[in-house]
Amino acid sequence: MKYTLPLRLCSTIAISLSISFSAYAETKQPATTPNGIEMPKNYQNWQFIGVAHRTDNHSLRGILGNSIAVKAARSGNINPWPEGAILAKLVWKDRQHPLWEAATVPGDVQHFEFMIKDSKKYLSTQGWGYARWVGKELKPYGDNANFAQECAGCHAKAEKTDYVFTRPAEMP
Amino acid sequence: MKYTLPLRLCSTIAISLSISFSAYAETKQPATTPNGIEMPKNYQNWQFIGVAHRTDNHSLRGILGNSIAVKAARSGNINPWPEGAILAKLVWKDRQHPLWEAATVPGDVQHFEFMIKDSKKYLSTQGWGYARWVGKELKPYGDNANFAQECAGCHAKAEKTDYVFTRPAEMP
Repeated sequence: MKYTLPLRLCSTIAISLSISFSAYAETKQPATTPNGIEMPKNYQNWQFIGVAHRTDNHSLRGILGNSIAVKAARSGNINPWPEGAILAKLVWKDRQHPLWEAATVPGDVQHFEFMIKDSKKYLSTQGWGYARWVGKELKPYGDNANFAQECAGCHAKAEKTDYVFTRPAEMP
Repeated sequence: MKYTLPLRLCSTIAISLSISFSAYAETKQPATTPNGIEMPKNYQNWQFIGVAHRTDNHSLRGILGNSIAVKAARSGNINPWPEGAILAKLVWKDRQHPLWEAATVPGDVQHFEFMIKDSKKYLSTQGWGYARWVGKELKPYGDNANFAQECAGCHAKAEKTDYVFTRPAEMP
């Protein structure tokens, strides 16, 4: 439940005072990844950046961002993405909608991935910290910290867009 | 920019006091639909419910909800959806990712649609008010108020799930 008291100051700046009662069941924090990344808390409530359908591995994706990432995405300041930006890529196995043959919709959780921009900390992977948790059990991916090189290797294809494949979807 | 002062009361209830400075360019409010619905303000910042890929009309969809809808989706109380719930279905033409052949990603805006649950007001369309704005220009869809019967006719297929096709994606 969220109560918001909007106070409009001028046409482009608004301050809102909000009190949120989070009544959802508390989710369990999964184990830390082998490269020392904890799953960001409250990612479920992050704002929307984009979607994707991968037909090679039969998955549907929702891409959300923390406040730094969303602000950057919506103002077009994403090359490079700013320090502190975190992208959440929520990946489900795709399945056919039971009532609509031509619609592909999310099935079971395939994996949830995060990219954290910190140019100094993650210098060896081009400024991004990579983390992945697999399946509904959110089991950390990777046998050791080197798994992140696998991520970075693939993301090298997106070098010209700061190693990020996602293009923010247009929201006029 | 968002400053949040979290005050944790107990393990399952949290109150946060937040002040949001919306620094994005103010978006223009599109014209009202022929059935008298205004586009909900601030829908861009609503929380995530699901995604879909329609191969029949080549579109990718992101489904967001207002706070009532999101609370219902995440607690499983969606049959029926509660009064006041609003679902936003943001629909883009699909396109191939320039760097990843097997990835379909959002292209131009196809249309943005909203479903508003108000059993009394929208009795003639099974309790849902339907609204659609077409293209980047967000032109209201429909020549007159009867266009909503077209929406309701199609959604009749989803009668057993309160006329909603969307199933909230799992977020463990």
